[in-house]
Amino acid sequence: MKVDNNNFEPVFVHTVFFWLKNPDRAEDREAFVVSLRKFLNASKYAHTNFIGTPPKATRDVVDGSFTFSLLVSFTSVENQNKYQAEDVHLTFIDEASHLWDKVVVYDSNEV
Amino acid sequence: MKVDNNNFEPVFVHTVFFWLKNPDRAEDREAFVVSLRKFLNASKYAHTNFIGTPPKATRDVVDGSFTFSLLVSFTSVENQNKYQAEDVHLTFIDEASHLWDKVVVYDSNEV
Repeated sequence: MKVDNNNFEPVFVHTVFFWLKNPDRAEDREAFVVSLRKFLNASKYAHTNFIGTPPKATRDVVDGSFTFSLLVSFTSVENQNKYQAEDVHLTFIDEASHLWDKVVVYDSNEV
Repeated sequence: MKVDNNNFEPVFVHTVFFWLKNPDRAEDREAFVVSLRKFLNASKYAHTNFIGTPPKATRDVVDGSFTFSLLVSFTSVENQNKYQAEDVHLTFIDEASHLWDKVVVYDSNEV
């Protein structure tokens, strides 16, 4: 079992939570999802992806305050690095960053 | 790694970040991962799972302060509810909760 942060890991998951400025404005939600899907469909490096929204939180420990979540898996750390620099990624940020107030990112190497 | 293009078709993803009390103590890390894997292997409702650790953070927007991440996908919201109540889940919490200081959970329904 590998629990060493410094070891090279073959699989990597990038998790992002977005808080939109106007989470109840349907046009903003739509514009965000359309731009994000266009980007993910065009990415050469994203392996799997999942776009989500919070259910009604039922337990105190659950943070249901975000507007959208994004999970992207990669088959290598290098692919994640390339994804960060892809033109389609930068286009998504250009198109959609005015829609959000706050972004929190957690990256994970497989244990 | 059980997340791949063929399998990773969740309707619900449960994402948990754990901050261990002693993140640098190898016995604590090992005990945590052993208990978590035992639970996930025994769960009837978890569809796919991924256990991770943060890489060295390279960008300001990335929160690399957690000790372990856990992603669990489910094929239905009902299965996620059943997972929360499973005996093996409660056993994991009994065995391992003394190891952590803080847990943050984000749940997501697929858009």
